[in-house]
Amino acid sequence: MTDPIPLILDCDPGHDDVFALWLAAASPAVDLRAITTVGGNVPLEFTSMNARIACTVAGVEVPVAAGASGPLVKVLQTAEWIHGANGLGGPELPEPTVPLDDRDATTLMADVLAEASEPVAIVATGPLTNVAVFLRDRPELVDRVREVVWMGGSTERGNVTPYAEFNAWVDPDAVAIVLGSGVKFTMVGLNTTHRALVTSEVQARIATVGNRTAGFADELLDYFCHTNAEVFGLPDGPLHDPVAVAVLTDPGCITTVHTRLDVELAGTETSGATVVDFDGMLAREPNAHVAVDIDVPRFWNGVVDAVARLA
Amino acid sequence: MTDPIPLILDCDPGHDDVFALWLAAASPAVDLRAITTVGGNVPLEFTSMNARIACTVAGVEVPVAAGASGPLVKVLQTAEWIHGANGLGGPELPEPTVPLDDRDATTLMADVLAEASEPVAIVATGPLTNVAVFLRDRPELVDRVREVVWMGGSTERGNVTPYAEFNAWVDPDAVAIVLGSGVKFTMVGLNTTHRALVTSEVQARIATVGNRTAGFADELLDYFCHTNAEVFGLPDGPLHDPVAVAVLTDPGCITTVHTRLDVELAGTETSGATVVDFDGMLAREPNAHVAVDIDVPRFWNGVVDAVARLA
Amino acid sequence: MTDPIPLILDCDPGHDDVFALWLAAASPAVDLRAITTVGGNVPLEFTSMNARIACTVAGVEVPVAAGASGPLVKVLQTAEWIHGANGLGGPELPEPTVPLDDRDATTLMADVLAEASEPVAIVATGPLTNVAVFLRDRPELVDRVREVVWMGGSTERGNVTPYAEFNAWVDPDAVAIVLGSGVKFTMVGLNTTHRALVTSEVQARIATVGNRTAGFADELLDYFCHTNAEVFGLPDGPLHDPVAVAVLTDPGCITTVHTRLDVELAGTETSGATVVDFDGMLAREPNAHVAVDIDVPRFWNGVVDAVARLA
Amino acid sequence: MTDPIPLILDCDPGHDDVFALWLAAASPAVDLRAITTVGGNVPLEFTSMNARIACTVAGVEVPVAAGASGPLVKVLQTAEWIHGANGLGGPELPEPTVPLDDRDATTLMADVLAEASEPVAIVATGPLTNVAVFLRDRPELVDRVREVVWMGGSTERGNVTPYAEFNAWVDPDAVAIVLGSGVKFTMVGLNTTHRALVTSEVQARIATVGNRTAGFADELLDYFCHTNAEVFGLPDGPLHDPVAVAVLTDPGCITTVHTRLDVELAGTETSGATVVDFDGMLAREPNAHVAVDIDVPRFWNGVVDAVARLA
Repeated sequence: MTDPIPLILDCDPGHDDVFALWLAAASPAVDLRAITTVGGNVPLEFTSMNARIACTVAGVEVPVAAGASGPLVKVLQTAEWIHGANGLGGPELPEPTVPLDDRDATTLMADVLAEASEPVAIVATGPLTNVAVFLRDRPELVDRVREVVWMGGSTERGNVTPYAEFNAWVDPDAVAIVLGSGVKFTMVGLNTTHRALVTSEVQARIATVGNRTAGFADELLDYFCHTNAEVFGLPDGPLHDPVAVAVLTDPGCITTVHTRLDVELAGTETSGATVVDFDGMLAREPNAHVAVDIDVPRFWNGVVDAVARLA
Repeated sequence: MTDPIPLILDCDPGHDDVFALWLAAASPAVDLRAITTVGGNVPLEFTSMNARIACTVAGVEVPVAAGASGPLVKVLQTAEWIHGANGLGGPELPEPTVPLDDRDATTLMADVLAEASEPVAIVATGPLTNVAVFLRDRPELVDRVREVVWMGGSTERGNVTPYAEFNAWVDPDAVAIVLGSGVKFTMVGLNTTHRALVTSEVQARIATVGNRTAGFADELLDYFCHTNAEVFGLPDGPLHDPVAVAVLTDPGCITTVHTRLDVELAGTETSGATVVDFDGMLAREPNAHVAVDIDVPRFWNGVVDAVARLA
Repeated sequence: MTDPIPLILDCDPGHDDVFALWLAAASPAVDLRAITTVGGNVPLEFTSMNARIACTVAGVEVPVAAGASGPLVKVLQTAEWIHGANGLGGPELPEPTVPLDDRDATTLMADVLAEASEPVAIVATGPLTNVAVFLRDRPELVDRVREVVWMGGSTERGNVTPYAEFNAWVDPDAVAIVLGSGVKFTMVGLNTTHRALVTSEVQARIATVGNRTAGFADELLDYFCHTNAEVFGLPDGPLHDPVAVAVLTDPGCITTVHTRLDVELAGTETSGATVVDFDGMLAREPNAHVAVDIDVPRFWNGVVDAVARLA
Repeated sequence: MTDPIPLILDCDPGHDDVFALWLAAASPAVDLRAITTVGGNVPLEFTSMNARIACTVAGVEVPVAAGASGPLVKVLQTAEWIHGANGLGGPELPEPTVPLDDRDATTLMADVLAEASEPVAIVATGPLTNVAVFLRDRPELVDRVREVVWMGGSTERGNVTPYAEFNAWVDPDAVAIVLGSGVKFTMVGLNTTHRALVTSEVQARIATVGNRTAGFADELLDYFCHTNAEVFGLPDGPLHDPVAVAVLTDPGCITTVHTRLDVELAGTETSGATVVDFDGMLAREPNAHVAVDIDVPRFWNGVVDAVARLA
């Protein structure tokens, strides 16, 4: 077996981010070195608190540092209608024992890269603000980043405007900066994550694991499926974020293609649309890997196994 | 049975426009009063000639008038890679016996409206330039237009850029003018027309009709399926344009929803995208009917019946 | 002396358009062959009527044909606050004896070009809609157009938004089409026309001419200076439109430079701004002649002389 | 006399920034508490070094901290053609004795605000990146900022594109963020600074002061006037940046109006244009103070006095 891939998780928990965190923490294929947080689903105070809670519940001990409170230029828009006022609607939230690191997100990222003997992967499950700031301000460290895998965007329709997905729409400028940085980039968008549905069978399998993490997970999923049913008419809420982690923890589970990706910054109706030119209609060079398929049972096996390995 | 709906067909033949023309001419549910042509798939000289040829082959006798040679503002982009240099690649083209009307397209439209005892429908199967010019310049006649049904746009991906369909992308300004005119508007986009596939079974059914029109149709479909296979990897070419006609000739065949439609004019990556807000995410008033489903066998029955009624 | 330049005047009268018309009609350096009208300062019905009145008052007999009622894509915005509800606030308006031609503006333009033994100049003193439609739809006639001289735009600030002049802002798409047509193009913008101020001395000189035209002119200027004082705080209203005519009737009076001109179509704050790159900062090819100076006394001499030659 | 205004200078030296720094350091009306640097005229390494050199030459001892190396989203464009490769072309540059602070720019800004007993003014003479980051990321400190005065923008033409001034064009997103922050904001643009010309008489007066600062100044001005003559044909280079400082050090010297200011973010031809609606044509609320006049002799007196007070 190859060495685990050193990993930084940049997230804005949010229910599905918590599962991404657990999958990253428990999978033997990756070595989670740090967690950074960004304003997104809810304001930064909550996403930072929630990352610490997710670690505390599951017994995960890695540095957690807060980053950008909002997008580079736009005003932050949040998604309480899905995640609740505190971002983790549902369970009673314990006081976290995992502390908030003194460093800010990009400093922690730089420190992790400096200490690693090999390039470090970044998985981002929120707006790309932190990653963009890091790549923009530390060009000398770009070579130390193995790759960036992002849950965001879509090759089809969006979930916040007809053609824009939430994370892309919150900070499209950040997407443009990451695309322009030259780092290896994989987009895992709604076209793929919309198949990772929390069916009642999936939820039951997770609950059956029986440990503390599983109990907390079960309460998160109750809430998350309920709001997805209300807002989108999807009773089996799609659990977007861990799909991005699965690109590294179980690559055979996610199919990607190397293609062209641009982000719309100027449109009055389509700002934040991720424009993927599968057919080469624009005759531009490929610049990104884009997820197009998921082995759904295998994906859920990975999530269940991860929960079982935690506290 | 109700009276047939008086109808003007505005088109840019183009293989699939020819089938739209035949369906409109032969269906008892509509009364085709005039054909107008626009630069689109190929330049106006060809689309005008091809409309006359399509009439000549099938024995259709209605006025045919030429309209705009290109879009309102943009420079015309054509699609010879699908339709061939003359727009009707495949069959040997006869000399048309149907003449070109002296009037221009919008004058013919106005005359048809003036002569009709009830409002007249317009089906457009090319860029909306002629329709936009008419509605923009003759606001006093808007009430005489029963509705506009358009093959164009998409609720999903495009076919000329990732999010733009050809007819919308050629003249997005025209789409905006039609949307702003207040006329009843139905968009039949790629999301629906991509299901009207010319399978070998469909093609055989048409050929079997055995009349002159069927023979010409068979040769058109040979060519059209061949270029669709080459360009898009779709050996069963989608026959877009007659689907828009079917909205009037066999309403039960096409499912539409009343929803919000806007067109992107400003985007650098998404110009011409038709932005359909099914879920009311933008909280704007519905302003268009958008096709979302097609009864495919019933659609082809209608096309085959139409061919059989022609010469 | 060289032969007079055959000329078409495209206008949207409007007070200052009337002086442009008179200067064009009376100057020996040009041969006014036709007048076409466009919706602009006021709706097309009024601009067409006013062109006929201006001809009637001054004894000018050329064909007058109506063109576009509004811009190519945008909705028409008018300027009654300067010109009054009928576009010629001030004098009592006579019933015109000059008829409205049966042809539309672009047909009349084409006929004049066909009949002329040499290329014909077009001076436009309103939105460029008619000129754009003509150049867009009759590319085979572009060579028959000697040049287009336009009152519009600015190299400095605007008069309807901070950086947009009225005629450019009403139909920026038309400006783009004319710029793209390859025809020789001269822009006479606010930077120059703002110096053609109707001082009380100027107005007195015109009134003193003493003929019918002079009397009508005096009443027009009373009104025009009054509204300019109210709206812009400029008691000596700038008489924009005849400055464009002077480029042909007295070239030595207007200084132009050959430079780069682009029009902003996409800006949210600057739509319709005419962007003139005098210093070659953008390293693009020169594509227009732009007026930068005016010999003010000489200009007014020309206007006074013209009035004196009329009825 | 009132207490001096506590002041932070944010700059990207650059020749004229150095004069701004000296004016801020020597004027009794303000109390310069810190200097922060930003990438702009030249990369951040040079602007930080040059700020320290300007302090060293003149005996100024305040903390100097480096901020953003480039704009929020755009790629940094620099202006070596005016300032030379190191940003201070001309004099031989001494090794600075003033150190670079360990803190980054926004941390230093926050510390200065925390230590001040009254609100602190910020004068920015480069792209507004640092100021935007500070106001965006520390909304709880906005009340501690007395006002922001910025050298940038224009109410007329630009100096890097026809309608954009360099500092605004380098980071227009930052201008938008500052405008949206609600802080009192004064724009000192090219329309005013283009009158602060370094005539030979002005340069001689500065040189005559006779101290070390004056000698260094004289060499800077030789170079700066030379490149301005070459690039813009302006042998008397306009010394932009100290004019912004003069708004605080000698308010009677600069006339401002309270008006409406927006920045163009979307235009293809006008990105970065600062759109000032003096006449209320857009009917929006005033949101900025905009410099419109300068008492030129009084301004130069202030600069000469400042140089004389330094080492």
